[in-house]
Amino acid sequence: MSVSSINARNQFRGKVKALILGPVVSEVEIETPAGIVTSVITTRSVHDLGLEIGTDVLAFVKATEVSVAKL
Amino acid sequence: MSVSSINARNQFRGKVKALILGPVVSEVEIETPAGIVTSVITTRSVHDLGLEIGTDVLAFVKATEVSVAKL
Amino acid sequence: MSVSSINARNQFRGKVKALILGPVVSEVEIETPAGIVTSVITTRSVHDLGLEIGTDVLAFVKATEVSVAKL
Amino acid sequence: MSVSSINARNQFRGKVKALILGPVVSEVEIETPAGIVTSVITTRSVHDLGLEIGTDVLAFVKATEVSVAKL
Amino acid sequence: MSVSSINARNQFRGKVKALILGPVVSEVEIETPAGIVTSVITTRSVHDLGLEIGTDVLAFVKATEVSVAKL
Amino acid sequence: MSVSSINARNQFRGKVKALILGPVVSEVEIETPAGIVTSVITTRSVHDLGLEIGTDVLAFVKATEVSVAKL
Repeated sequence: MSVSSINARNQFRGKVKALILGPVVSEVEIETPAGIVTSVITTRSVHDLGLEIGTDVLAFVKATEVSVAKL
Repeated sequence: MSVSSINARNQFRGKVKALILGPVVSEVEIETPAGIVTSVITTRSVHDLGLEIGTDVLAFVKATEVSVAKL
Repeated sequence: MSVSSINARNQFRGKVKALILGPVVSEVEIETPAGIVTSVITTRSVHDLGLEIGTDVLAFVKATEVSVAKL
Repeated sequence: MSVSSINARNQFRGKVKALILGPVVSEVEIETPAGIVTSVITTRSVHDLGLEIGTDVLAFVKATEVSVAKL
Repeated sequence: MSVSSINARNQFRGKVKALILGPVVSEVEIETPAGIVTSVITTRSVHDLGLEIGTDVLAFVKATEVSVAKL
Repeated sequence: MSVSSINARNQFRGKVKALILGPVVSEVEIETPAGIVTSVITTRSVHDLGLEIGTDVLAFVKATEVSVAKL
């Protein structure tokens, strides 16, 4: 199913740069113009999405999940 | 209390660009080299951190909160 | 930007049934075959997505966000 | 400790249909009238709750964790 | 519906000490032996749960939502 | 990079009491005056932060991630 737009305000286009596959969850490293974005998703989702090194993806995060620290 | 480092893999340095203050939560727009990052935090935290337009901040997100979509 | 698939394992198609708009975040009630699903997103996202009563949407949740209780 | 009600607006009753146990976290597949709901929790919680195939459970999600996409 | 146990590893019993009600979400301050715990939930959940100053509650958090910083 | 303060309203100082290392994510048990707080973070973050038994850490949680149940 294709979707036309997502509510998440924070969206980063990029390419899968590395995958660390675990038995339940996996780490996906995504190279974006903003630098490396790291995501942990289920290993089943990695397979369902057909993620491989070089796959074009969108990493996104809800604004309620973003923390802020003062420097 | 000062902390030396945070576990969150996804960290974006930037400056507060806009603030929308609500009665309970507020939206913080942060200008980073990666583009605009938007965070929703409690309005009390906005005041406790002393956030204003131009404040230097670090936006960060746990890898478990990052979703991935295939383009 | 259109995306072809999302990693979130928990996806519910439905129609917007009600909207409670706040100054920063809004509540979106979505009628799905699974019953009512409720989401809180930024009010700006409600406007950007053009959500109205009756809009066709997909509600989705990462598996790491789902809690389990024993009955 | 028994609780009488939970704040989460999104609650789905069901039965554990499958368990994928990992060293730290596990995937719990829950069959509900709404379809399969998937949760990732710590493997210690799986053991503490005594989850097995067929256990009656409640899967629940805070509204702030639900994302919305437009179809 | 009563539940007998929840997967969340981090549970804090306490009493509601303060409520800041907003149009969509509200802040609940809970006094626990561990100090004040603050939660943001939908205002509808505040009403559905019948929360008032002094109500006995359980605040809980999934382990995947807890961040760690080094001092 | 050192930060001076974090928005998270819920902060617990403590010492690492136990570590369960997995291939992708690890469980960190932290002994605090409030009792044991459990966090799941990426194993790479465990290494980057140099976490060991006895390390002084701060566990913290955004208010939007805290659920409330009525007893």
